[in-house]
Amino acid sequence: MSILNYISYFCRMKKFIAFLKDKPRLYNIVFNSDTPAGKAFDIAVMVAIVLSLLVAFVETKPEVVGRFKDVLTIMEYVLTVFFTMEYILRLYCSPKARDYAFSFFGIIDLLATLPLYLSFIPYLSSARYFFILRVFRLIRIFRVLKLFSFINEGHLLMQSIRLSLRKILVYFLFVLILVTILGTLMFMVEGGQPGTQFTDIGTSIYWAIVTLTTVGYGDITPVTIVGRFLSGIVMILGYTIIAVPTGIVSATMIDETKRKGKNGRCPRCNEKTDLKANYCKHCGERL
Amino acid sequence: MSILNYISYFCRMKKFIAFLKDKPRLYNIVFNSDTPAGKAFDIAVMVAIVLSLLVAFVETKPEVVGRFKDVLTIMEYVLTVFFTMEYILRLYCSPKARDYAFSFFGIIDLLATLPLYLSFIPYLSSARYFFILRVFRLIRIFRVLKLFSFINEGHLLMQSIRLSLRKILVYFLFVLILVTILGTLMFMVEGGQPGTQFTDIGTSIYWAIVTLTTVGYGDITPVTIVGRFLSGIVMILGYTIIAVPTGIVSATMIDETKRKGKNGRCPRCNEKTDLKANYCKHCGERL
Amino acid sequence: MSILNYISYFCRMKKFIAFLKDKPRLYNIVFNSDTPAGKAFDIAVMVAIVLSLLVAFVETKPEVVGRFKDVLTIMEYVLTVFFTMEYILRLYCSPKARDYAFSFFGIIDLLATLPLYLSFIPYLSSARYFFILRVFRLIRIFRVLKLFSFINEGHLLMQSIRLSLRKILVYFLFVLILVTILGTLMFMVEGGQPGTQFTDIGTSIYWAIVTLTTVGYGDITPVTIVGRFLSGIVMILGYTIIAVPTGIVSATMIDETKRKGKNGRCPRCNEKTDLKANYCKHCGERL
Amino acid sequence: MSILNYISYFCRMKKFIAFLKDKPRLYNIVFNSDTPAGKAFDIAVMVAIVLSLLVAFVETKPEVVGRFKDVLTIMEYVLTVFFTMEYILRLYCSPKARDYAFSFFGIIDLLATLPLYLSFIPYLSSARYFFILRVFRLIRIFRVLKLFSFINEGHLLMQSIRLSLRKILVYFLFVLILVTILGTLMFMVEGGQPGTQFTDIGTSIYWAIVTLTTVGYGDITPVTIVGRFLSGIVMILGYTIIAVPTGIVSATMIDETKRKGKNGRCPRCNEKTDLKANYCKHCGERL
Repeated sequence: MSILNYISYFCRMKKFIAFLKDKPRLYNIVFNSDTPAGKAFDIAVMVAIVLSLLVAFVETKPEVVGRFKDVLTIMEYVLTVFFTMEYILRLYCSPKARDYAFSFFGIIDLLATLPLYLSFIPYLSSARYFFILRVFRLIRIFRVLKLFSFINEGHLLMQSIRLSLRKILVYFLFVLILVTILGTLMFMVEGGQPGTQFTDIGTSIYWAIVTLTTVGYGDITPVTIVGRFLSGIVMILGYTIIAVPTGIVSATMIDETKRKGKNGRCPRCNEKTDLKANYCKHCGERL
Repeated sequence: MSILNYISYFCRMKKFIAFLKDKPRLYNIVFNSDTPAGKAFDIAVMVAIVLSLLVAFVETKPEVVGRFKDVLTIMEYVLTVFFTMEYILRLYCSPKARDYAFSFFGIIDLLATLPLYLSFIPYLSSARYFFILRVFRLIRIFRVLKLFSFINEGHLLMQSIRLSLRKILVYFLFVLILVTILGTLMFMVEGGQPGTQFTDIGTSIYWAIVTLTTVGYGDITPVTIVGRFLSGIVMILGYTIIAVPTGIVSATMIDETKRKGKNGRCPRCNEKTDLKANYCKHCGERL
Repeated sequence: MSILNYISYFCRMKKFIAFLKDKPRLYNIVFNSDTPAGKAFDIAVMVAIVLSLLVAFVETKPEVVGRFKDVLTIMEYVLTVFFTMEYILRLYCSPKARDYAFSFFGIIDLLATLPLYLSFIPYLSSARYFFILRVFRLIRIFRVLKLFSFINEGHLLMQSIRLSLRKILVYFLFVLILVTILGTLMFMVEGGQPGTQFTDIGTSIYWAIVTLTTVGYGDITPVTIVGRFLSGIVMILGYTIIAVPTGIVSATMIDETKRKGKNGRCPRCNEKTDLKANYCKHCGERL
Repeated sequence: MSILNYISYFCRMKKFIAFLKDKPRLYNIVFNSDTPAGKAFDIAVMVAIVLSLLVAFVETKPEVVGRFKDVLTIMEYVLTVFFTMEYILRLYCSPKARDYAFSFFGIIDLLATLPLYLSFIPYLSSARYFFILRVFRLIRIFRVLKLFSFINEGHLLMQSIRLSLRKILVYFLFVLILVTILGTLMFMVEGGQPGTQFTDIGTSIYWAIVTLTTVGYGDITPVTIVGRFLSGIVMILGYTIIAVPTGIVSATMIDETKRKGKNGRCPRCNEKTDLKANYCKHCGERL
């Protein structure tokens, strides 16, 4: 190796160090995706997440683990190193490292890198703490939530859900109260029958949920005529009242679209738009 | 005990009696929730209701009753005393006690406190009237309906349901008529087959309800080709016509929102609002 | 019996004949329901229809027929006489008897009265024609459709369905084409497996309908990983695309409501309404 | 045969050749349906498609193939000749034959005619390539997609789906992420139980899809109380959040209808319409 090689290597190292020292630029690459480098980083993280999901899925299948043990072990090491570096990088380049560390995704990121390190501690790898290790392993799957933050359109859905959340929660509670009543009525009707599947109130309410939401497993079904009549009522009720929350949410969405339109602001980026524009001039959203 | 103690005790008693004599204030605490005391009372009632629900659920599980008999008995006594006092308090502080006593919740409140008292009557605790006692016990669960009256947002849902009720009822009837026809057709097709599950018209209509509402228990399924073809039609029909009531309710909701907006009134509290306000100045509802 | 009795009887007969001769008034009673007599007639017909439905339901249960044979026979005779008289009355008082006789309900009314008369013909009551007689018996159930014409609100639903019919039909066809494709794909995936339930294309398409419409009987379920993956896609597809027809129908309904509003006409009776009216002055519909 | 016959035959041949040479007219008949000849051609193709679907369905039922082998073979020959001629005709009269040949329907048309020709090649008809031949046979079923292009109303549905596609895709992904989380949670709860049906994460996610989308096969059901509680939450969640995409799509549709209305253009043919017109003067669409 000539001296030139050393110089070139030194220059590259210097550049890399300079790159690492430019925290704002690094922050932009790691947390945003509007630069080519930022996009590449995002895609690398997405691929790593999907791979780690696959590993987590496969690890719960004993017959697959037996055959591909080596591949899975190597992938686990590689992915853990990758996510550890990602976590350190995010901590390092955040202007407020603490905010990231205690944010929802910061905690998920940390917890998801731990299982491999924990398995090195001899005390924990004993059978006694096996369950805790497994839970930690499965926490990795929650990383799937990060995928959603990569989709632009996701913001609209999230905003819609946030707007409708109170209405949905109230409807959720309404359904809970309804199934309690319906389950109790059904327990009164079918509970005393010989060989009934409605053994207690809890099971009856579970049946009412399965039926009202039109899931219909069929693991618990009525056998008496009155029971079948009542469950018919429950089914048509569930099939009909679904129109109410849908109508409420529709009205909210339309109202929101209109208010946004009146203010002359884009529904996506909330920037002022020209009155006659067909597309937002800030984000390209169709108006 | 010194004389001071007696005096302090006497003062507190006096205060308590004065408190009980101030009916309008008591009424405000018991029936409304806009004061801290009223909120505390509401929360106490909600906790008691949830506890009594849990007791009622658990009491139908013989294996749990066997193990926790004492705890359940004590909870039943405590809760019965609590609800009895609540009932007397409500009766006492209502300006129109009769209206409360004969209101829906008044009757539920009374019926729900009875089972323990009825079990003291030797004549009723015999096996003969066991069923009646059980029904009374289960009536306690209807107290869950009171939970709904504690949620502010619930009014909007209830109002929406009231607005759409006629439309929903008509759709309910429409579905009933449809399943009668479809069940009869299916009975014509599959009824005569050997080993059929469509033994009579009633069962066929039950099947049509299960299928049209997309519940799909799978306890009764067609076996002939014509039967499967017909049930395929029923399924797609059920999956498609659900759009109609949803559309009707959506149109009603949007229309209602607009009418309210035009009148310059808040959709929640129906008070006059400023034209440019973003929130109702009376109840804080987003406009 | 005195002469007075005869006279009174004769007068009543005369009145009754005069009543029968006043065809327009009779027509109003039989076909409309805006007079007290017309309402009473409607309710009598509704009760008779519900009774005849119950008889038709029960007749398919052999164990019930055995026990209540006499009651059922009497009810069948009484109801047949009632419906025969109703049919003759409708034919008699219609200005255009032919239009009624060949209308949908005219044919249903005729067919529904026939089974008892047909059973008197010795040739037909043989076992050979038993199936035809049974089908005729079941046609009586189609009389349930008449119930719908008695509900005022039903017109709105019917109008909504008529307005959305083309859209619903297109969606129906869209779903049919989709399930053909999805069923074929599933047959490619699961068809060759040993012990598969996807024995042929028809069964696979039936499975695709059951799954896409979220009915989910569970009589045919995938077992391979690829099959489960594909059926997961089908389920989420079915769960998601339901939003499209619902959105289309909602838009139609709202558009329709608005157009009606603009024209200053009531959406129900289509009469001109005052601009500031809250209720239609012609039919009382809320505007 | 006299000379006149020859002349008449010659004239008809000449006419037919002239007809074939008139490419624009032929194109109009084959690709459009606004002339009587074009409509007849469309209907012939539709009948042929439905027949070929029936043949493809029946061919997968061994017991039917055994009985009607000759009929099926003849139909396959006739249909293959018909579709081959249709394909050549389309290629021939298209101004841009290449565009058609590489369009989606062009490829389907070609692939769907191949299976019979491929079966003539001795090398391919061996058992080894049997699977490939079967797949080619089943590709014919994709011709069902062409049926959709024959319906005028289909354009509106397709346009609606295209407008909502991004929203639906985002919701699709949202549901995918949700079921991954819910399936993992359920695996944590029920996974370790003896005799559990939740054997691995993949199966648990499959269960979560089946439950959240309210399909509910019932092939995998929870047995523990915590599992039933969690699945109850999943069901009500699935039953409730369906309101969100429906609301979003409704708002989009209504917004679209309004924008079209404002521009004074027909929502179907996008041509300018008169302001007070009730029907589009270009395509008859109700405005």
